[in-house]
Amino acid sequence: MEKRYRVNLVNSLNGYKSLNLLGTINPDGITNLCLVSSVFHLGSNPPLFGVIIRPEREHNDTLRNISLVGQYTLNNVLPAWYKQAHQTSASYPSGVSEFDECGFKKMYSQGFLAPFVASSTVRMGLELREMTDLAINGTTMVIGEVVLLMADDSLLADDGTINHAAACTMTVSGLDSYYLPQPVGRLAYAKPGVQPKEIEL
Amino acid sequence: MEKRYRVNLVNSLNGYKSLNLLGTINPDGITNLCLVSSVFHLGSNPPLFGVIIRPEREHNDTLRNISLVGQYTLNNVLPAWYKQAHQTSASYPSGVSEFDECGFKKMYSQGFLAPFVASSTVRMGLELREMTDLAINGTTMVIGEVVLLMADDSLLADDGTINHAAACTMTVSGLDSYYLPQPVGRLAYAKPGVQPKEIEL
Repeated sequence: MEKRYRVNLVNSLNGYKSLNLLGTINPDGITNLCLVSSVFHLGSNPPLFGVIIRPEREHNDTLRNISLVGQYTLNNVLPAWYKQAHQTSASYPSGVSEFDECGFKKMYSQGFLAPFVASSTVRMGLELREMTDLAINGTTMVIGEVVLLMADDSLLADDGTINHAAACTMTVSGLDSYYLPQPVGRLAYAKPGVQPKEIEL
Repeated sequence: MEKRYRVNLVNSLNGYKSLNLLGTINPDGITNLCLVSSVFHLGSNPPLFGVIIRPEREHNDTLRNISLVGQYTLNNVLPAWYKQAHQTSASYPSGVSEFDECGFKKMYSQGFLAPFVASSTVRMGLELREMTDLAINGTTMVIGEVVLLMADDSLLADDGTINHAAACTMTVSGLDSYYLPQPVGRLAYAKPGVQPKEIEL
């Protein structure tokens, strides 16, 4: 299989993926921003997420900053500026901030060093818990605990669920195909022998 | 934070998630099917995906079957039967097949033991490569290599990308909110100093 064909195919096999901008800062105060599509939920208590980072040049700043500072942010991507978000995946030289190059305004939370994306609507601040090199293919799994959440109260339902349709959160398929999801239905907790029931979104 | 509120909130923090039905079989031929939202792309060469399985009763069959047989399938979820897919998350007793209980027709590929979901449009067969217990919260990370792909040729673009809009693939947010994404745009490979450019979807 030709290399580019294989990369496009395999990256699109698992369907739609979580789309987030990952923000970091180095000890000299230089920020970094990169687009990631491999964030996965690991557990709710404590609130843990994992993300896979490839060992390539453009990502070295991200990994180095996370290991030096111990913090990072994950921020959702909106249709109004998804092209700018995609642009952060270009290979900017180390030490150049994608916040500046791609036109993103930084936002900070007192006592937390890593920068948030001001134009996002759902932003979380994480502290590094584990960084594991995966021998199977040389990628790195970063596990972090959510210690901060910056989102408008109107996006949170009474039961804690975030309304990502109202938040205008996007998703991605493959390397470069961006989508905006439309709600189909929300379903009650499933029980054996009971028909699936729709609940309010 | 109240437990249910926390679970709803944390599960919805990272936005839309890959949605797949995970099919397995045990050495006695009893099949199992469960809905997963934590499949992540690990690498394209070899084609590797990870998935996080919680150490709970309803998932024991899945983990046990994967470790005994060394194979599993991932199948996309469609709007016409997403409620049945959700129903597989009910706590059926061990040894009861969610294929039968939730009304799914099995499909097999010659020489591959694990069952596929006939009504899916994108189905992959994986061989187990690694199973790692994560000490941080007791979940298990399963890493598999794609060895089979069953999808209609019309869903594959010339460059290998799968058209998930045409495949009617759904996504999920939180524990139970199901969505159907609409295409916004596909963007060319990003380069420093070059404006993001739309390409054909």
